[in-house]
Amino acid sequence: MAKYAVGVDIGGTTVKIGIFTVEGELLTKWEIPTRKDEGGAYILGDVAASIDEKLKENSMDKSEVAGIGMGVPGPVKQDGTVLKCVNLGWGIFNVEDELSKLSGLPVKAGNDANMAALGEMWQGGGKGYTNIVMVTLGTGVGGGIILDGKMLAGVNGAGGEIGHIQVKDDETETCGCGKKGCLEQYTSATGIVRQAKIALNTTDKPSKLRSVQYISAKEIFDAAKEGDELANDLVEAHGECLGRALAQIAATVDPEAFVIGGGVSKAGQVLIDTTSRYFVKYAFHACRNTKFELATLGNDAGIYGGAKLILG
Amino acid sequence: MAKYAVGVDIGGTTVKIGIFTVEGELLTKWEIPTRKDEGGAYILGDVAASIDEKLKENSMDKSEVAGIGMGVPGPVKQDGTVLKCVNLGWGIFNVEDELSKLSGLPVKAGNDANMAALGEMWQGGGKGYTNIVMVTLGTGVGGGIILDGKMLAGVNGAGGEIGHIQVKDDETETCGCGKKGCLEQYTSATGIVRQAKIALNTTDKPSKLRSVQYISAKEIFDAAKEGDELANDLVEAHGECLGRALAQIAATVDPEAFVIGGGVSKAGQVLIDTTSRYFVKYAFHACRNTKFELATLGNDAGIYGGAKLILG
Repeated sequence: MAKYAVGVDIGGTTVKIGIFTVEGELLTKWEIPTRKDEGGAYILGDVAASIDEKLKENSMDKSEVAGIGMGVPGPVKQDGTVLKCVNLGWGIFNVEDELSKLSGLPVKAGNDANMAALGEMWQGGGKGYTNIVMVTLGTGVGGGIILDGKMLAGVNGAGGEIGHIQVKDDETETCGCGKKGCLEQYTSATGIVRQAKIALNTTDKPSKLRSVQYISAKEIFDAAKEGDELANDLVEAHGECLGRALAQIAATVDPEAFVIGGGVSKAGQVLIDTTSRYFVKYAFHACRNTKFELATLGNDAGIYGGAKLILG
Repeated sequence: MAKYAVGVDIGGTTVKIGIFTVEGELLTKWEIPTRKDEGGAYILGDVAASIDEKLKENSMDKSEVAGIGMGVPGPVKQDGTVLKCVNLGWGIFNVEDELSKLSGLPVKAGNDANMAALGEMWQGGGKGYTNIVMVTLGTGVGGGIILDGKMLAGVNGAGGEIGHIQVKDDETETCGCGKKGCLEQYTSATGIVRQAKIALNTTDKPSKLRSVQYISAKEIFDAAKEGDELANDLVEAHGECLGRALAQIAATVDPEAFVIGGGVSKAGQVLIDTTSRYFVKYAFHACRNTKFELATLGNDAGIYGGAKLILG
């Protein structure tokens, strides 16, 4: 019977890999660089070789490993086909078959945001729930939906792509996706900083943010905690935008909990309080008690999710 | 082995019942009145007695019936507990256990909008798909989500309650749910008529709708087809509001197709064309090719869904 599972999280710069017990304990984790030469042709080979080496190093036999679960930065169809991972140079091919051939182990793959959601449900902020929507507020806004313990991948691999819900009509700047007014443009770390710059440039309101050279999401939330009025307005607007979008999502998939992660979530309880207050205002009455939790696994969520995916 | 399945759709006025072959052919259907006296205490007994009678009439043996699938007008938890069906006078109890005791048959229950979605997927406009979002544009706006062939009931029984997605900020009238600006207020049959009255009262635009005493959704779509400018504006606004909300839903659950039913869907292809045009405008690029279909089962969708639910 299998004792171990391997979780892999392929990013644009590094690949994170972890070996877990089947019960969910992370035994060892490490990183290798993501080799993007020749359309990313070496990435999966590097992953397989690195896992082999680490198993030997730890005297673990391959027969004791249930398999590899892998998150990739792009849409993945249910049969394991990636549809394009621009960051890696990958085109369209079946990553599960490919890594399985290279490693001699069963492989399952999914979108990295969905994997993070699965990881948080298994051993993180969503532990104890089986129906969650994970929201990652980082450079962009990622989402992952888990229903009855399973990832909602979506027919086009776009399940949980909530960062690209259009929330505003009057936006003039274009989102990375090509549309205007996406949730990501207001609620990601980049988004709230962009809103701060607009507010600082279009009002005369005094604010300690005026003396900060490089404003980050952290500075905005910290200033709001200290009573800075302009920062507080930004945090309120952030919470309203996010809370309202999550209310729309609740009226669609009706989860037990939202789990909030990513850099912005380091703001902590104030983010949860503000977002959930607006959520209650906009939510359909039956969903008003949906819980809000902070993610706890940080950058390891993806490898946890990988291990959980292959363990089923 | 079972030859038949029974589908039941409990409405506020009548209960629809149908007997199907396990292959999905509707053999016979009938209606009984919904007895709402004493908090709806007689409804399930009436249903059980009526099914017994009809089975005898058709010389069908109970052992040949796989069971009963039932749609009810309110949220139903996964264990079969209804949380309140205001229209029937029901409080909180397990309808599956209750009808199973009364009928001696296995029973599964679900929300009526979800059942209609399941029915349309099985034998209607969604046939051939396994991932659909059904949108019912009737007096209100109902929704039902089918993922991998299974209903998304939601943790609070509010899965697919898309009529109560908040889509406008400046609404002054209150929706039946207590909020303001719900999708239902603009895109239901009632909603588009309400919008027509506002347009007729606040503009001087000539329109043949001015000579209609009781405007219905049908008159608005018909006038638009005949080139009436004001009616056309209403149809465009309807399509934009609906298309945009469906784009948000696509970025969440990413289905293969939207199936549009309810009274408004009698407008036919013009409704599909307008809605899908705006959908493409607002949708995340990976979901832009999501199909749009018209529902085909009309008021029978619920009993089809019931039969499919119990057949699994």
